[in-house]
Amino acid sequence: MEAEKIQGPTNPMVTPLLTDLYQFTMAYAYWKGNKHSEPSVFDLFFRTNPFGGEYTIFAGLEECIRFIANFRIGEEDIAFLRQSLPPTCEDAFFEYLRGIDCSNVQVYAVAEGSVVFPKVPLMRIEGPVAVVQLLETPFLNLVNFASLVATNAARHRVVAGESKLLLEFGLRRAQGPDGGISASKYCYMGGFDATSNVAAAKLFGIPLRGTHSHAFVSSFMSTDEIVHKPFCSSDGLTTCEDFVGLVQIWLKKLQCTESLRASFGETNQSELKAFTSYALAFPSNFLALVDTYDVVRSGIPNFCAVALALNDFGYKAGGIRLDSGDLAYLSRESRRFFCAVEKEFGVPGFGKLCITASNDLNEKTIDALNQQGHEVDSYGIGTNLVTCYAQPALGCVFKLVEINKQPRIKLSENVSKVSIPCKKRCFRLFGKEGYPSVDLMTGVNEPPPKVSERILCRDPFNECKRAYMEPQRVEELLKCYWSGDSGTPREELPPIKKIRDRCIQQLNQLRPDHLRRVEPTPYKVSVSAKLYDLIHFLWLNEAPIGELQ
Amino acid sequence: MEAEKIQGPTNPMVTPLLTDLYQFTMAYAYWKGNKHSEPSVFDLFFRTNPFGGEYTIFAGLEECIRFIANFRIGEEDIAFLRQSLPPTCEDAFFEYLRGIDCSNVQVYAVAEGSVVFPKVPLMRIEGPVAVVQLLETPFLNLVNFASLVATNAARHRVVAGESKLLLEFGLRRAQGPDGGISASKYCYMGGFDATSNVAAAKLFGIPLRGTHSHAFVSSFMSTDEIVHKPFCSSDGLTTCEDFVGLVQIWLKKLQCTESLRASFGETNQSELKAFTSYALAFPSNFLALVDTYDVVRSGIPNFCAVALALNDFGYKAGGIRLDSGDLAYLSRESRRFFCAVEKEFGVPGFGKLCITASNDLNEKTIDALNQQGHEVDSYGIGTNLVTCYAQPALGCVFKLVEINKQPRIKLSENVSKVSIPCKKRCFRLFGKEGYPSVDLMTGVNEPPPKVSERILCRDPFNECKRAYMEPQRVEELLKCYWSGDSGTPREELPPIKKIRDRCIQQLNQLRPDHLRRVEPTPYKVSVSAKLYDLIHFLWLNEAPIGELQ
Repeated sequence: MEAEKIQGPTNPMVTPLLTDLYQFTMAYAYWKGNKHSEPSVFDLFFRTNPFGGEYTIFAGLEECIRFIANFRIGEEDIAFLRQSLPPTCEDAFFEYLRGIDCSNVQVYAVAEGSVVFPKVPLMRIEGPVAVVQLLETPFLNLVNFASLVATNAARHRVVAGESKLLLEFGLRRAQGPDGGISASKYCYMGGFDATSNVAAAKLFGIPLRGTHSHAFVSSFMSTDEIVHKPFCSSDGLTTCEDFVGLVQIWLKKLQCTESLRASFGETNQSELKAFTSYALAFPSNFLALVDTYDVVRSGIPNFCAVALALNDFGYKAGGIRLDSGDLAYLSRESRRFFCAVEKEFGVPGFGKLCITASNDLNEKTIDALNQQGHEVDSYGIGTNLVTCYAQPALGCVFKLVEINKQPRIKLSENVSKVSIPCKKRCFRLFGKEGYPSVDLMTGVNEPPPKVSERILCRDPFNECKRAYMEPQRVEELLKCYWSGDSGTPREELPPIKKIRDRCIQQLNQLRPDHLRRVEPTPYKVSVSAKLYDLIHFLWLNEAPIGELQ
Repeated sequence: MEAEKIQGPTNPMVTPLLTDLYQFTMAYAYWKGNKHSEPSVFDLFFRTNPFGGEYTIFAGLEECIRFIANFRIGEEDIAFLRQSLPPTCEDAFFEYLRGIDCSNVQVYAVAEGSVVFPKVPLMRIEGPVAVVQLLETPFLNLVNFASLVATNAARHRVVAGESKLLLEFGLRRAQGPDGGISASKYCYMGGFDATSNVAAAKLFGIPLRGTHSHAFVSSFMSTDEIVHKPFCSSDGLTTCEDFVGLVQIWLKKLQCTESLRASFGETNQSELKAFTSYALAFPSNFLALVDTYDVVRSGIPNFCAVALALNDFGYKAGGIRLDSGDLAYLSRESRRFFCAVEKEFGVPGFGKLCITASNDLNEKTIDALNQQGHEVDSYGIGTNLVTCYAQPALGCVFKLVEINKQPRIKLSENVSKVSIPCKKRCFRLFGKEGYPSVDLMTGVNEPPPKVSERILCRDPFNECKRAYMEPQRVEELLKCYWSGDSGTPREELPPIKKIRDRCIQQLNQLRPDHLRRVEPTPYKVSVSAKLYDLIHFLWLNEAPIGELQ
């Protein structure tokens, strides 16, 4: 039994009740009209790429599959539904609900972590209409935010560049507990390197990062005694009896060094105490937040004094974090200081210490930093990343495209909101240069596009936009991820690391002008000639003829 | 034992690991420096009201208290922390973590559902510094989104007016599963009437609402047979043998009625089938989504035909939902049609049928509807409400204000980011007209403000802004909600309905110019003369003196 092999959703609050009431009232109306078992096909897709971009990362698939693999309405939930629906609802309906599972549902989907485009189904869900409708809200909930935040992460990766370390620091400002946990998961999927969120790291095996906060620095007073037991050098051969004194000696040396002295005088002694104390706790992982008092006049020299004292005993410091001010300028000043220290005191590698920047960063500020010139190696990004501040919602929808083998179309006065009818297959066609060139939707019974065979690709809603294409490679996009009891073999759910690799690889494969931040080129999405004709036949058929007054 | 009386957090994913790694690295550094038990005081507050407004609703308190009441780091989590921290961390530290609970923590807070203002602590958390730091991230996570979305809901209530029904429909676009569930909870708290989210309704006892979707309407074909068993009149005395035929008769009557005929001709028969089928399932609760094909030419007459057929058997229809188009115009047209039906066919109350509007509504669109004139009785609001689209994050922070009885200040080059030091009491002072006039912070050992006694209120950061106040009423804002083992009596955690009542009552109590959407008047927040002096003494003491070059 397939269902037993797949774990439940990560968040135990994801149950069949995590849906809109109207899915249950509709289920009742379908059932009452004996229509509940009619075979139906729904597409899950979005209409516009987020963040003013021209690509989106598809995420959330695994959670959807975990959800349906374990879909069962428990007794307590049945009781709640019974009291929530009108008392006229018949008992036999609740018997029916009690028996529902997803054994006669099938889900075809694009692989998680793929680059995807508007209008093309990310998922095609087939099954009895009443059951599939119950899946609409949870699927949308699980896919919308996941894809949005994965896309946001990917966009930050594109602007920061491959060589930078990207850290997700958003938990405190996220939209609730799993707004935070999901964000950590999907930011990693979208190309981030690590998170500060311990729970997410444990759940998904994401690397963890963190230093200390301003409160840690402020908690020390200049008059504090530092509790200090002798500590061992990194090779275990020597013991330092007076680390605090050694730090003071190094600070004096820095103050007396001609090439450094211009930038500072007396540093803040509370801060120095805090750094010293942190270094004693983490001699091999000494990282310091240097902006509590003043980066240039206090934080950097204090950090260097402690790092140099550690260096005397064989420990390499990790680096600093800048959390305020002009990050371009401060990172350059910090780098200049580190390089001067390397040169003056002959400490190899000191000039290359890692500089992390944080403080309300987003795509735009990173872009601005790049333009100003900076020495940041690593970005800690929180609020703007995890809440998707620039656009906090993705508009995936879930539309009926076929029922009882009959194609259905959803009309709208707004052409961009008309849905593409019938059960479809979707293909990505690659051009001569190896780039993906166009995504093509066809009816499920049409012959699929073939390598080196000319095929007409039409814009679904603009009769003038059409082009022939001779694909060099054809990739079918929708694969079976849930086959219920049908016996169709299904794709594996890959580990998160593999999904992340796919995402990075797919972004690298894309033509760069689709990726750029300013005025990116739209990627082409098309339908076959046959599907085009069907759309426009149904449209004319369903639309009422107006009456001008 | 107090902890045993309080349930755990609603979301089981809220555990002590739902925090930033640096809280644990700092805990280790405190512990290693024997500083972990130093008594500390932290304030949780925000600096700017969201949505360009001048008020905020405080929410999330109960979840914070549930969290600390059950704070224990389990063995599996200890094991994970051990593998996540550097291997040099001593075993005894993990023993210490194993023993941590919140029995020596105290939490003072403003009552949940209160109107609150920038800079004034929403919560004051006291306890051993290492333990309180571990609470920082989860508290911020639990308060930030809760307060943000409650405020958003309250703002929608203010613009919609007291008489309108406000329905939260956001689950599908929310930021993850409990971005949806928390939104449902806190929107209700902020003044919404109901949700479509079944799981949230079950968890929190929130009223549920819902109709059907476009997919339901599209799933019917004009050729479908409606399965129909005879159905009883509402009084049980008569039986309808041919409801489908009766609907057709009513549709004909409507078509032949002079005062109505101008607006429509042939209606969409698939839609009529869908409505009929829904009415047969829910004769006492017939609500219809009328915009699948064309509101005026099809949806409204079809709805009325079904509603009139139901009326013949003693059932009153509920109303309609409009989900696209010009909602002001369509609601007026619908109302006109309903009133004409009431008059033509003598159906009392038909003119007053409930009109619900949905489709990407927000504060601004509701305001625009009000200005255009409309007949909407009820709003279904989703994306903009639950993701707080206009501003998706609130910036609550958690700042150390005292350690070892010594006041601490956090400096910043940005004056608005300087924190207000020392353990404080906070009061709301009411003026002669009964409105809250100013919030006042004092040191905890100062004499509190008294009714009818003149007191100087100072802006914390602007020496010119100060005013005398003779309060007519004084309300202490911070009350004890968690006293650990100290024996201090603590406030009850009220049921959600009471919190909602408090919120509505507090909004009504506020001077209207603080509430208005455009250019609202800022509410005054001040400190006592003594606290003002302390802030500026510490500031001078801690800030480094610059060196102009």
